[in-house]
Order: sequence, then structure tokens, then C-alpha cells
Amino acid sequence: MAAAPSVSSVLHQVPIALGDRSYPITIGSALLADAATWASVPAAAHGVIVTNVTVAPLYARRLQDAIAGRHRQVHVVELPDGEAHKNWETLSLIFDALLGRGCDRKTVVYALGGGVVGDMAGFAAACYMRGVPFVQVPTTLLAQVDSSVGGKTGINHPLGKNMIGAFYQPRLVVCDLDTLQTLPAREFSAGLAEVIKYGPIADTVFLDWIEQNMTALMRRDPGALAHAVRRSCEIKADVVGQDEREAGLRAILNFGHTFGHAIEAGLGYGQWLHGEAVGCGMVMALDLSRRLGHVDESWVRRMTALLRQAQLPTVGPDLGPDRYLELMRLDKKAEAGEIKFVLIERPGLATVRGAPDDLVRQVIADCCRPS
Amino acid sequence: MAAAPSVSSVLHQVPIALGDRSYPITIGSALLADAATWASVPAAAHGVIVTNVTVAPLYARRLQDAIAGRHRQVHVVELPDGEAHKNWETLSLIFDALLGRGCDRKTVVYALGGGVVGDMAGFAAACYMRGVPFVQVPTTLLAQVDSSVGGKTGINHPLGKNMIGAFYQPRLVVCDLDTLQTLPAREFSAGLAEVIKYGPIADTVFLDWIEQNMTALMRRDPGALAHAVRRSCEIKADVVGQDEREAGLRAILNFGHTFGHAIEAGLGYGQWLHGEAVGCGMVMALDLSRRLGHVDESWVRRMTALLRQAQLPTVGPDLGPDRYLELMRLDKKAEAGEIKFVLIERPGLATVRGAPDDLVRQVIADCCRPS
Repeated sequence: MAAAPSVSSVLHQVPIALGDRSYPITIGSALLADAATWASVPAAAHGVIVTNVTVAPLYARRLQDAIAGRHRQVHVVELPDGEAHKNWETLSLIFDALLGRGCDRKTVVYALGGGVVGDMAGFAAACYMRGVPFVQVPTTLLAQVDSSVGGKTGINHPLGKNMIGAFYQPRLVVCDLDTLQTLPAREFSAGLAEVIKYGPIADTVFLDWIEQNMTALMRRDPGALAHAVRRSCEIKADVVGQDEREAGLRAILNFGHTFGHAIEAGLGYGQWLHGEAVGCGMVMALDLSRRLGHVDESWVRRMTALLRQAQLPTVGPDLGPDRYLELMRLDKKAEAGEIKFVLIERPGLATVRGAPDDLVRQVIADCCRPS
Repeated sequence: MAAAPSVSSVLHQVPIALGDRSYPITIGSALLADAATWASVPAAAHGVIVTNVTVAPLYARRLQDAIAGRHRQVHVVELPDGEAHKNWETLSLIFDALLGRGCDRKTVVYALGGGVVGDMAGFAAACYMRGVPFVQVPTTLLAQVDSSVGGKTGINHPLGKNMIGAFYQPRLVVCDLDTLQTLPAREFSAGLAEVIKYGPIADTVFLDWIEQNMTALMRRDPGALAHAVRRSCEIKADVVGQDEREAGLRAILNFGHTFGHAIEAGLGYGQWLHGEAVGCGMVMALDLSRRLGHVDESWVRRMTALLRQAQLPTVGPDLGPDRYLELMRLDKKAEAGEIKFVLIERPGLATVRGAPDDLVRQVIADCCRPS
């Protein structure tokens, strides 16, 4: 018999193994409002929930009540919503609130929201008094399967995405699958882009499963969501456990992101959602992989069809090849001016390498059109 | 026979033992312009010297030439001078320069200057692309004996000093003692405050040596400076090696800083130099230690006389006890609203503890006067 929705149930625990910075990802339903979910969070005088104006009315009060037993005071900081606000100005709202309310260095920061909230709250926690404890409470699919896991935090610079940040691990990640039911369709699709990503780079069995279950995923079937979140987190945990600070392997998680970040910065942050840009970036990276002879056209078509089924854009904006190249040369993976792409060597295996400029220009010409 | 001043000589190497983040402090003369000094710095396409408008004309070119062999391009970023500029606005000048010049994540950042430059360049290195290699080249006495060692980086917030930052270790610290000869008298005295600090908290033998050699130090005798910098770095290395992230012991290095930071923030950053505020803060912390029965009045008088001999202010500005307490409650050592002071248990031994508010008010009343 299925549990009633008001009773919390932990479906999976995925451990992230990083020595003394290890932590679990808890995946389940009705976790947010259950005090038991938060039992491992350090008790401290102050708890601060960082969220945004969209998520706050839905979930802030519930979390506030659930963690009330761990803190003398629980404060809520509401940020504006969206990637366009992932900058220093918004970050300093968090610092102002922390200092204004006399928060000391044992204060626990909770990131309640999507990737933007998680990246900013995490970076604020990393920097406030040189580091305070931090908990990720991702409420979007994208954040649950990708951005809340692995300790990447940061803000954007007008010239490049996530250029200013820190590797800073949370103490706990809580993925309450129920929050995915309130997600706008566009946000949900953006999250699916990062789920799909794990197939081509790491796991063809999972990729087959995604193809077979795309209809169930699109109607947000709880069982399908539970498996998608769990398997995504497992793959990410495995990669991050081997290469926390992206000395090598971890870069494969950036599949689709080299082109994707250029789309985001080139159009202006917030025009396309991050997941949308990544989805389209994957199409471009697949096309480049094909041109380099790694994968065949039918498989690229199959991947593109899957992204389309997830209602993601598969044709890029026409920024012009020069602008694409200029933006990609600032990518964090670039070295001495050479752009590094995450390419698919064969289905389920990714590699990071450079590519001739003229080939990249052909990809851009073929995959983009004026908007 | 003494070496001619143009030939570099390494007088001491002090190791900082932090596992895979270990690094040496090299202390000597004519080190800056010698390419051999920089042989252990990672080779990278870009090197960026972060300095300020005062230090740049004196030393930037020399360093630029010396590291030319390690980088394809060496850029110089000049910041405005002074604690008043240790904020986000100035920090973003560094990020703008790094991105504007296409610096990748292997770029080496060199901090050439005093504590403010070191703290900002270090924090920028910690955050740029989530961390790039970083070298400290301290040119002030304060930076050589304290701020360049141990990985504390950060910026000020209007409500509190160093409130936003990171623990981020350099790859190398190079203390070229020759640079101390060009230091303005007030800056030199400010540095002596941090040298003197190590006596009461950790080493009475060193304290006796400082008293006996204050005249030689004040005339900047190279031999005396070499010993003062070396012994200060040794004590700091020992403490930081035991407690990198200030879980406990490291806080003793903040002797004089609780009152001192309140002076700096209360007067407005840059009115008093950091070392001046710390010197005066030590007088106040000594007075509090005496009132708590730890040390006797004659010893406090001896310490105060030593600070006066170093031409440091020993009477605090009259911010009023309420303002002092308000600012100190935001100190990073404070916990759940209780201010923690670094106090002297007995000469050579420090402790971190709270104190009754009325006693602290008496200290403020007795040690401060209207300016």
C-alpha cells in the first residue's frame, strides 16, 4: 500500500564520498515538512533559509517550521527569481541579511529553490565569515539531479557564466520529489535536459530507460521521477567522488555546457533557462562529435528526438560563429585560448578535447538559426 | 663577506605544513628580482600581478621581469591603496581584468603589496573560476609577519571587517626584506604591532628579544628584521599547521583584533591602519586580562610601553561603549551573541573566552578618549 502523501518517506539515500566532506543525498516524498529529515543538521542559534520570491510562498513556511527545533531563530531571505539575478548585487542581499541579523559563524544556511538559489546560497555560505554550514534543499528537477550535488557554487560575470565561485560542499542534500509537482512546464523540461545528459556521457542503460519512460516522466509520474533523480544523483556522486575539483573526469558533466553557456551569456542571462541552453548545447556537441567521426548520424538523430520529446529547444540562437567562439574561449575548461569540448566518444563514454575552429563554425552554422 | 645587495640571498625557509596544501615561506634579501625565487611556481600562459598604485612604481616591473620566464603573458592590475578600498567594488576590478585578458584557470595570481592587496588578490584567486594558483609577495612588515601567511583572504563589509572571504592557501610566500626599507614609518610601526603580538600569546623569549632589540628594529636593521620576520612566521606556521580553519587554537592569533576590528569599523576603514588598531586593541585586551586577574599591572604597563616605543597608539578612540559592544558582537569569534576575547592567561599563553559586559565597559571607559 502506498504511503499517504502527508507521511514522509525516504526512498533512497545516495552517499557522496569526499572524506571528511562526505554527505548524503536524501530522496523521497514529504521530506521537507518532517523534522526528522533535518536531524543531522548541526544545531545552531541561527538558521537562514535563502529562497526566492517564487518558491517562498510555496515552501518557506513549511521548512521554517520543520527546522524550528534546530535553531533559536530561523530567518528567511527572499531573492529575486531567475538567472539574470545571479550576480554580486543579489549575493550581497544575503550577506546584508546575515550580518544585519547578527548571524555568527555556526549559522546554518539552507538553500531552498532551484539552481540559481543553490549556487548563490552556497557561495554566500562558503564566503560568510570564511565558511558556515550549508544545506541544499533543491525544489526543481534541474537542482535535484545536478546543481545541488557536488559543491559547485558561484555567480555569473557579464563576460561568463559561473566565473566567480567556490567548491563548497553542503552537509546534506534533501530532494523532496513532491516539490516537482508544482514546477512550471518549462522549468521541468529544463531539468530533463540534465537527466538526459547522464545517458550519453555515462550510462546507456539509463539512456534506454529514459527513452522508454519519457512519457511517464513528462506526466511527472512519481515512480519515474524517483528513479530519474536517484540514478542521476548516483552517476553524479560517482564522478564527483573521483574528481571533486574538476582536475579531469568531472568535466564530462559539462556535456552541452560549452555551447550552452555561450547561449546563456550571448542572449543575456535568463533569456533561455540554463537547462534549455544545455539541451541545445548537447545537440551542438553531438553534431561536433559526429563530425569528428565518433558517433553516427542516426544516433545523433535519436538523441535530438529525445530532447525534442522533452520539449527542449534543439536549434540554437544565431549569435554568429565569431560571438560563439569569443564566448567559448572564456569557458573555464579553455586552456591558453584553446576551447575544450565535452564530446561523445561512443554512446555512454565522454571525452574532453579541442576541435578545429572551422569544424566548430560548421556546427554553429548548421545548428543555429535567427530567432 | 656580506653579499652585495643585488645578489639575492635566502636567509630562511619556513615550511607551512598543511598536507597537500603545504608551502614554504622564503625570507631573504633581493629575492624579488631573482628568477630563481620563482622556480617552483607553476608555469602557465598567464601570470597576473595584483598590486596597488603605491607599490606598483616601486616593485611591479622588477617582479614582472623576474617571472617572465614562467608565463607567456604577465599582466599587472593596480588597485587603489588602502583599507577603505578592501571591498567588492575593488575586488571586481581584479575579476574584470582576469576575464578581460582571457585568463584561464591555470593562471597564477601574484599578490604584490601589503595586507589589503594580499587579502583581495587571495580572495580573487580563491573565487576566479572556483580557484586558481596564488603566490604571496608581501612588501609590508605586517603582511610579511602575519597576513600573507596562513591562507586567510577576504574583503570587508560595512558592518564588519573580513566578513566575506575564504581560507585559501598560496603556493609560495616570498618575503623580500629589502622592501621593508621603503615602507612609510606609520606602516612600519603598524607591522611591529603584529610582531609584538606573538610575544604575549606564544613566546616570552621572543618577547624579551623584541624589547631588547626595539631600537634596532625601529632603525630597520636588516639582521633584526630578518629575525623578527622569521620568528613571527615560525610561530604563525606552527599555529596554522595545527588549526588551519580556526576551529580553536588559531583564534589566539587574533589577540588585540576584537577591540581592533571595532576601532577600524567604528572609525571607518582606513582611518587607523589595521596594525595601529590591533596595537591599541592589545592594550585593551591586556587591561581586560588584568581585570580578570590573569596578569598583573606592571606587566601590562611593560607591554604598553613596548607598543609606545614602536610608536603605536595606545589610547583608543571614543566610540562609546555601546558602539564598541555592538561592533564586537558581530566579530567572527562571537557565538550566539556572546563576544569572545583573546586574553592573556599568563605571559606567553593566550586563551579565548567571554567576559562580563560591565568589565568590558570599564576597559573601554579607561582605555579610550575623545579624539
